[in-house]
Amino acid sequence: MPVRNAQFELIRRDGKARRGSFLTAHGRIQTPVFMPVGTCATVKGLTPEMVLGTGAQILLANTYHLAIRPGDELIASLGGLHKFMNWNLPILTDSGGFQVFSLAEMRKITDQGVSFRSHIDGALLELNPERAIRIQENLGSDIAMCLDECPPFGCTPDHLKKAVIRSIDWAGRCLEAQTREDQLLFGIVQGGTDLSLREFCAQRLVELGFPGYALGGFSVGETPEQMAQALAPCADFLPENKPRYLMGVGRPVDLLRAVASGIDMFDCVMPTRNGRNAMAFTHSGDARLRNAMHRGSPEPLDPECGCYCCQNFTRGYLHHLFQTEEMLGPTLVSIHNLHFYADLMAGARASIETGTFDAYVTNCLGRWGLER
Amino acid sequence: MPVRNAQFELIRRDGKARRGSFLTAHGRIQTPVFMPVGTCATVKGLTPEMVLGTGAQILLANTYHLAIRPGDELIASLGGLHKFMNWNLPILTDSGGFQVFSLAEMRKITDQGVSFRSHIDGALLELNPERAIRIQENLGSDIAMCLDECPPFGCTPDHLKKAVIRSIDWAGRCLEAQTREDQLLFGIVQGGTDLSLREFCAQRLVELGFPGYALGGFSVGETPEQMAQALAPCADFLPENKPRYLMGVGRPVDLLRAVASGIDMFDCVMPTRNGRNAMAFTHSGDARLRNAMHRGSPEPLDPECGCYCCQNFTRGYLHHLFQTEEMLGPTLVSIHNLHFYADLMAGARASIETGTFDAYVTNCLGRWGLER
Repeated sequence: MPVRNAQFELIRRDGKARRGSFLTAHGRIQTPVFMPVGTCATVKGLTPEMVLGTGAQILLANTYHLAIRPGDELIASLGGLHKFMNWNLPILTDSGGFQVFSLAEMRKITDQGVSFRSHIDGALLELNPERAIRIQENLGSDIAMCLDECPPFGCTPDHLKKAVIRSIDWAGRCLEAQTREDQLLFGIVQGGTDLSLREFCAQRLVELGFPGYALGGFSVGETPEQMAQALAPCADFLPENKPRYLMGVGRPVDLLRAVASGIDMFDCVMPTRNGRNAMAFTHSGDARLRNAMHRGSPEPLDPECGCYCCQNFTRGYLHHLFQTEEMLGPTLVSIHNLHFYADLMAGARASIETGTFDAYVTNCLGRWGLER
Repeated sequence: MPVRNAQFELIRRDGKARRGSFLTAHGRIQTPVFMPVGTCATVKGLTPEMVLGTGAQILLANTYHLAIRPGDELIASLGGLHKFMNWNLPILTDSGGFQVFSLAEMRKITDQGVSFRSHIDGALLELNPERAIRIQENLGSDIAMCLDECPPFGCTPDHLKKAVIRSIDWAGRCLEAQTREDQLLFGIVQGGTDLSLREFCAQRLVELGFPGYALGGFSVGETPEQMAQALAPCADFLPENKPRYLMGVGRPVDLLRAVASGIDMFDCVMPTRNGRNAMAFTHSGDARLRNAMHRGSPEPLDPECGCYCCQNFTRGYLHHLFQTEEMLGPTLVSIHNLHFYADLMAGARASIETGTFDAYVTNCLGRWGLER
């Protein structure tokens, strides 16, 4: 289905928080939404049916990892990423840029693009805007991201400004390079915590015209408070009638604060990575399942949770699985955490619809033992 | 449900091969049957629903591992093993003896029992017939096994004979120690490849009277040919009207040969352990999924298989999962291998019913590239 325009529908506002929906080639997405991360074309330890069962509407997959292994052309030859991993709902792919800057070795960046060595086998590779689009078109994701330069937190103002200029230039080249009609291309606003630079970047990207916009360069070293302060004005720089995606964030409290600032979409490895390490998010705060207090516990992980893990197993069993290093422990707690994140966003959507989002946030934070 | 007697029903014979069924507290089992191994109260990497989906009728869990971690009394306090691991079909537990002889350190064995150090933390532990029954009653398995001494292959005739005498003595003590009405206790015939010793042991155990009998001490170092030669006479020593269980065996070909010798029940870690190591059993022989020949393959793992893995994923995707060391690879191939084993036994049952078991074996071995 050709969808160059996301047809974003703003259903309801509650303060700055937005309840919306938009269309992709693999279906409509209800926002605010959290996207589980399936880096290598699999959400670690879970079947697609398990991911679906957590309430996920859309997955994120990583272009950098997939371009290296197994290769985007191989995935294209097998019918694209959806078929490859047997996931029939929407997929968003990042551009690969963030991983080039965080994982790869011997980066050399010019206005043309970036050359680097693979973190797997040291092979010399190149990424530029045209290649980033080509890879994502081979993968066949529903939402593709522009290649951008994500400078580290605390870089010089000059470095930050040059990265913004370059990201704008690359965004234009990405738009030019796009050939598929069934893929939404999102622009990425950079600028760190410099609001005037963020505004400048957002304006130039809006002039180019994208069906959606992301805020990049957050959660890269700044404090949660610095991020929270910058988010609301940054969201205000973006058009009302397009989805807004905060990349790589974050903890449940970060998601609620960002929704309150007007953000619609999120992704983060935290629910799955923490789940693999026996750390669970629950309605009454965090639980660490390796802790001896859970030994022999007949209680479910979260008595208020309807997920497969909480409906069928005890904390005592989960503790045992982590003590014996059984694979099922990471799988079950990942399922629970993804369900918790999906539930949190469903609660946000419902409370925005009834104009009670502020009370929802206050209630959540209070139960987690956090301040507003 | 009180079931001290398995009420074994011999439905049909085809040569020495037997098509039967018997009753446990958690339901009736159709034989020949293969039991997946869930050592630590989980089949590694699989949810109970996944195991069920492979066609499994009954699981095996390991008494030694569970008594050490999390402890049989803890499991009893959480309602028993079925509830602990959320598995509502039958469970067989071994006695713990085999692991004491293969895993534990500093064993000291007397007629009274065996003391040893845990392979986990070196704790000094004791196992004797009464304790083996007590643990298994705490676990609440449907089928418990007598504690026996399993001497290594190639031990002296004197050692072998003493182990048999001791195993018979311990079997009597296990029978005495039993208190639960809902648990079937199986006796274990030892004697290595010494047929007269096997016969002697079988006769003594039958005099004691068990609802089922196992052949222990096979697949402990002898060649497959030595095992195959000893199996048929050993099976003949056992009563017709009781289930016969060959412990810890084995490859698909071993199962078919053993069924042909009159064996009804099997367990082995091979389908799951090999699955975790990217080795799959298929209708056309073994497949090693890390092999570069599978890179980019659009073929299912086994086109004749109806399992979840084969219905939804390609060899190319499985190869990718193992190359990237993703947990889903071991999970999917374990599902497939367990389904393959369950299917193999279903085919054996069907062919015995129609008197065509011999042709079934010939056909299977031919397709796997093996001789009879």
